[in-house]
Amino acid sequence: MATHTPLRQMAAPPRDTITPATMRAWVLNNPDELELVTKPAPRPGNAEVLVRIDAVAVCATDLEVISQGPPALINGGPPFNQAFTPGHEYMGTVVGLGPNVDEYQVGDRVTVEIHAGCGRCKRCREGMYTACHNYGANYPGNDKGHRANGFTTNGGFAQYAVNHINTLVRVPDSMTDEEAALVVTAGTSMYGFTELGGLVAGESVVVIGPGPIGLLGAAIAKTLGANPVILTGTRPDRLAIGARLGADFIIDSTAEDPVEAVMRLTGKGADYVLDCAGTEESVNQAIRMTNRGGRICLAAFPHGPVKIDLAYAVQNNIYLYGIRGEGRSATHRALALMAAKRFDPTLIHTHTFGLDDLPEALRHARDRVDGAIKVVVKPQQ
Amino acid sequence: MATHTPLRQMAAPPRDTITPATMRAWVLNNPDELELVTKPAPRPGNAEVLVRIDAVAVCATDLEVISQGPPALINGGPPFNQAFTPGHEYMGTVVGLGPNVDEYQVGDRVTVEIHAGCGRCKRCREGMYTACHNYGANYPGNDKGHRANGFTTNGGFAQYAVNHINTLVRVPDSMTDEEAALVVTAGTSMYGFTELGGLVAGESVVVIGPGPIGLLGAAIAKTLGANPVILTGTRPDRLAIGARLGADFIIDSTAEDPVEAVMRLTGKGADYVLDCAGTEESVNQAIRMTNRGGRICLAAFPHGPVKIDLAYAVQNNIYLYGIRGEGRSATHRALALMAAKRFDPTLIHTHTFGLDDLPEALRHARDRVDGAIKVVVKPQQ
Amino acid sequence: MATHTPLRQMAAPPRDTITPATMRAWVLNNPDELELVTKPAPRPGNAEVLVRIDAVAVCATDLEVISQGPPALINGGPPFNQAFTPGHEYMGTVVGLGPNVDEYQVGDRVTVEIHAGCGRCKRCREGMYTACHNYGANYPGNDKGHRANGFTTNGGFAQYAVNHINTLVRVPDSMTDEEAALVVTAGTSMYGFTELGGLVAGESVVVIGPGPIGLLGAAIAKTLGANPVILTGTRPDRLAIGARLGADFIIDSTAEDPVEAVMRLTGKGADYVLDCAGTEESVNQAIRMTNRGGRICLAAFPHGPVKIDLAYAVQNNIYLYGIRGEGRSATHRALALMAAKRFDPTLIHTHTFGLDDLPEALRHARDRVDGAIKVVVKPQQ
Amino acid sequence: MATHTPLRQMAAPPRDTITPATMRAWVLNNPDELELVTKPAPRPGNAEVLVRIDAVAVCATDLEVISQGPPALINGGPPFNQAFTPGHEYMGTVVGLGPNVDEYQVGDRVTVEIHAGCGRCKRCREGMYTACHNYGANYPGNDKGHRANGFTTNGGFAQYAVNHINTLVRVPDSMTDEEAALVVTAGTSMYGFTELGGLVAGESVVVIGPGPIGLLGAAIAKTLGANPVILTGTRPDRLAIGARLGADFIIDSTAEDPVEAVMRLTGKGADYVLDCAGTEESVNQAIRMTNRGGRICLAAFPHGPVKIDLAYAVQNNIYLYGIRGEGRSATHRALALMAAKRFDPTLIHTHTFGLDDLPEALRHARDRVDGAIKVVVKPQQ
Repeated sequence: MATHTPLRQMAAPPRDTITPATMRAWVLNNPDELELVTKPAPRPGNAEVLVRIDAVAVCATDLEVISQGPPALINGGPPFNQAFTPGHEYMGTVVGLGPNVDEYQVGDRVTVEIHAGCGRCKRCREGMYTACHNYGANYPGNDKGHRANGFTTNGGFAQYAVNHINTLVRVPDSMTDEEAALVVTAGTSMYGFTELGGLVAGESVVVIGPGPIGLLGAAIAKTLGANPVILTGTRPDRLAIGARLGADFIIDSTAEDPVEAVMRLTGKGADYVLDCAGTEESVNQAIRMTNRGGRICLAAFPHGPVKIDLAYAVQNNIYLYGIRGEGRSATHRALALMAAKRFDPTLIHTHTFGLDDLPEALRHARDRVDGAIKVVVKPQQ
Repeated sequence: MATHTPLRQMAAPPRDTITPATMRAWVLNNPDELELVTKPAPRPGNAEVLVRIDAVAVCATDLEVISQGPPALINGGPPFNQAFTPGHEYMGTVVGLGPNVDEYQVGDRVTVEIHAGCGRCKRCREGMYTACHNYGANYPGNDKGHRANGFTTNGGFAQYAVNHINTLVRVPDSMTDEEAALVVTAGTSMYGFTELGGLVAGESVVVIGPGPIGLLGAAIAKTLGANPVILTGTRPDRLAIGARLGADFIIDSTAEDPVEAVMRLTGKGADYVLDCAGTEESVNQAIRMTNRGGRICLAAFPHGPVKIDLAYAVQNNIYLYGIRGEGRSATHRALALMAAKRFDPTLIHTHTFGLDDLPEALRHARDRVDGAIKVVVKPQQ
Repeated sequence: MATHTPLRQMAAPPRDTITPATMRAWVLNNPDELELVTKPAPRPGNAEVLVRIDAVAVCATDLEVISQGPPALINGGPPFNQAFTPGHEYMGTVVGLGPNVDEYQVGDRVTVEIHAGCGRCKRCREGMYTACHNYGANYPGNDKGHRANGFTTNGGFAQYAVNHINTLVRVPDSMTDEEAALVVTAGTSMYGFTELGGLVAGESVVVIGPGPIGLLGAAIAKTLGANPVILTGTRPDRLAIGARLGADFIIDSTAEDPVEAVMRLTGKGADYVLDCAGTEESVNQAIRMTNRGGRICLAAFPHGPVKIDLAYAVQNNIYLYGIRGEGRSATHRALALMAAKRFDPTLIHTHTFGLDDLPEALRHARDRVDGAIKVVVKPQQ
Repeated sequence: MATHTPLRQMAAPPRDTITPATMRAWVLNNPDELELVTKPAPRPGNAEVLVRIDAVAVCATDLEVISQGPPALINGGPPFNQAFTPGHEYMGTVVGLGPNVDEYQVGDRVTVEIHAGCGRCKRCREGMYTACHNYGANYPGNDKGHRANGFTTNGGFAQYAVNHINTLVRVPDSMTDEEAALVVTAGTSMYGFTELGGLVAGESVVVIGPGPIGLLGAAIAKTLGANPVILTGTRPDRLAIGARLGADFIIDSTAEDPVEAVMRLTGKGADYVLDCAGTEESVNQAIRMTNRGGRICLAAFPHGPVKIDLAYAVQNNIYLYGIRGEGRSATHRALALMAAKRFDPTLIHTHTFGLDDLPEALRHARDRVDGAIKVVVKPQQ
């Protein structure tokens, strides 16, 4: 298990603009055919920067993208983007500025959001850029400017990437590269609490599923003052980490019915539930453990239709918020809490590999080798 | 089909306080055992008034209450309240004032909301009184002051009822008794649009299910400026009424797939969907016809668990709002639009009966005899 | 006074792309030095279209811009943009498309918002593009993409203008050019009600100041179901137009104290006040006529500091929303209500001139010649 | 300066119901005529409890109430309530239960909100009970059930008080009496941030005025993750306490212009400003130091009209929220953060006196004797 490292561990920061001609990058030729190649380095366009990638974490979604190809592109895009570089939970150093960028300087350490909305659809105009109506529209013939690095545009399993400035969050020196690579995960949890209303101090919160988003979700709920914070799941070792991150109660749902446990602990059910498991069982538990007028955020989703007791939700004025990604600038709020050392996200960082060892990193993440939770790749090492 | 009547049709309004000793009222002795009895008339308590009931509409929920008994009481209340008077969609005239009431005068015409929250639980304190945590707690041993007339406290199939002033909405003379009895139905639709954000002008709205709430939902959406308003359902005669009430497009879902129709009419799917059908099919249609970042209000609910494509909702940042009743003072907004004659709610009023004929009224409503939509009972005739 | 014209009055719509080399346009060389010149026509860039201007209304702000020069540019821009074309309330026909535009077609009739936010600052990312932190940053050396046509970029007193697609609203054929030119005015009123929460049905609304924004504000409040709608001001002829547009009560504040009148009409004061006068007197009236917990939108502002009874606002939990422009896509909502013919905006359209007669149009607007309210210029005639 | 005391200092908690016939209480016969008397102890009514007062803090408003009489009663109440007991920032122990109360038990330690709304006006129904339209209506002839203990109903400078359960917040054993008496102060700050939207993590926040509300406001802003938190004021000793409570920067406004300082520290101005000074100068500073689209909460107010640069607020889309008291259950959120020991509120507790010494306690508070900030009276000692 990683320990918190007070000193920043990184290659010496570049202070001069770098314009690499080529770079080393993993590309996905076909599903499950990853290859490490040398390819032209990207050039930042208007409102973009070139990021030297210092750390990139492996997310469960990366495993899906790699085994199945990127999500089917909407809006008539090409069905499979060959030679695409996956990886979306990364941080690094700004080494080049596109035209008209003065918000960031060369040498700035940054972590990234996935989504740069098109800025011109109905949802982007409302500030809901993760629900961009031009998702995927960033290819010749339909270039609306949307980017989802690691999904529809090239991502972070490489030495460099290009990012729209809207996706950047400044990283203070007090935060290590590995910590900063976890900001997007914490940002997803924070987006959930944002959509749930944000005012969770003194309210009861249940987080279902001690994956990375759930564990940091428990930490953020506690940081914002929620009380009690209850974490439920099936893996005792992870639940134990949740307790260290701030959960007041952990419920092993193989040993106790989590709905009954929540009723016992809260009296009338939880005010807010963040479901990070995304199974038929977890969604029904979420509905049944929420009190009248309470709210549920669905931060994960089942594969295929699920049998849901929707009547209970309707009869009890329960609202369900399906989210994907880390919208409403939630990463900025997550980083602020992490920078203030309100919780120790490095508790979920378990392994580190170099760029050449990406397959091994992926194997650790997929098979949970050696208790792996968050596996980080450091392309500059 | 009723035609709109410009003149107010009612018994001469009482201008003096009435303190009836007894009244005629239907009581439910056991499920499906309704009896017309003479029983003591109620007396208004603090913050309450005595209402002489001038018109009461039959709702599908009344049929359920009558055949199954009132909803199982929460908080340990008595399992079945014998000699209970059902009926919740009523209007009438204030004929008596409880202590400390000066908000209303004897002679005021009023229509009612169902719920008077306890005023002391977490949700009532937030203004979410339809999600009162003391639902049903209004009996000796646990009197928290919650009332849901026609559900947990006596309702409107009677000559008189007692109402907390929080449930009253003033009715202008320009509105007939029959119209005013429909305010609570329109209030439910309005509550749906309230929770969806209220700003539907120029947005695409689909209403699924041309029952009374759906039909008035289409009317309210159009009144608030939604465009287009699409009404889907299986009964052409009701869909036709929806068109008269304001729907721009009606989709007979037995003839055309409603999801495809909505996609054809809106391009990217609807911004808002109000599901008033509450079936597995309708919920899945709602999810599939909503665009990214759109919102769904579930104003009806399936009996028993349903198989739902929740992944689609999560992947598309769709939010679902389960509502029951007519919260957030939505009846006041509904009445305001009705008083301004923005749409003709009497199009859904089809039949009228006297108090003695309640069984016949219920039969018309249940079996849709003679195209019945809203059947009204007038206890004073 | 203009009468409502059911038929669309416009030049034959162009169906082919037009790429004019030059155009006739008024330019402001120095404050109060307007000149009609022939200059190169603009070319639409990425996400932009070329609009042939069919109608442009004169706003009081145009008179300020012309007499004082454009508002001091923020962010270090040039102090005075010579040869700048003012005019911001216009509508027209799309005659050319920039790269990557398929949201609009050549031949589409459109009306415009003023602001295209930068899309990259904190506020734009929140959807508050009228509060763009890069306001004015659209010149060489600091091009962040912000545009405020008629303020910081060229506007509509010309034959053609370039518009970002975010500023466009589609105009149906049922709406005349003159009507469509009023959408931005109605959009400002609608933005006010949007920020006030949008749910004004059945609530009491006061509009102070029967200028164009106030008059259409009264119309929109009534359309959304507000009751009563009270319009106060000093000009009886304009108040009378307000009554025709939907105000339930008009208060001549030279004849009656408007605060007392509002108290008399509402009992406890207004729930919402839209101040379109922007004087020390009107702001204090607004505060004093608002009930506890009510809200005020300031849609106009005093020149110089004003003496305000702020204590009253604080002691009564009153919130004040200062707005400028027509944010949150409010023009789309305004157009939806206008397209549905919910009120007759042409009641405020009083005069029409050709492009050559702009000075005369400005004189009518400034001096209220012949009862002028909205004066429209039609560059294609 | 008080040090934080980890152990709970209180009289042994009563576990049995107490029904005192009389009690010692300070009463205000006329402005500035306080007298310690023995008078009948109150009896809790429906939904009320009897609280034995263990600690009551002196607020600046108490000094006003005592020197001027309670605030002029609205709704035609008696102009001066003789023999009234002031004091509103108190905590204590539940020693008696009114009818139908099971939410609290005898022996529970509780702290209180000031306001129990009537529960029946428009604002109470919306959850805005501090803006109750029946403020002050709790006397024979107009009893709507509103209570504002220490303002319109008897307060806490006494041995006992009666409280509606809506005003109670449970106090954990980890919190001392003195700490718990500060919850209402922290609740006011929290109400401010609630109305500002609640999502201040990573946002810049300025608090103007290092009085108790301002100091705890800085603490709460920091606790919620705001960054930077800037506290401005004129008293260096208090600013220093602000720094210990969490302010990142303190600005002595006698030494540096606070607007310039905020611009220097934030670049574009603050996202949120909480004005706790309530002077002409502070309000203008607040407006000028807020960035475009930012928000200001006015938690204090000037005596008499003030000259304000309102144009700046309107032109910059700035919203101002006037608040009074601690609405929206903000005390519950404040207590949750205090119970979690996120900041040390006892830093502002400076002096403690017994009930007999109230005049001396008031003198310390008024004249800031010996650096007094919060002076606490303990009636049971």
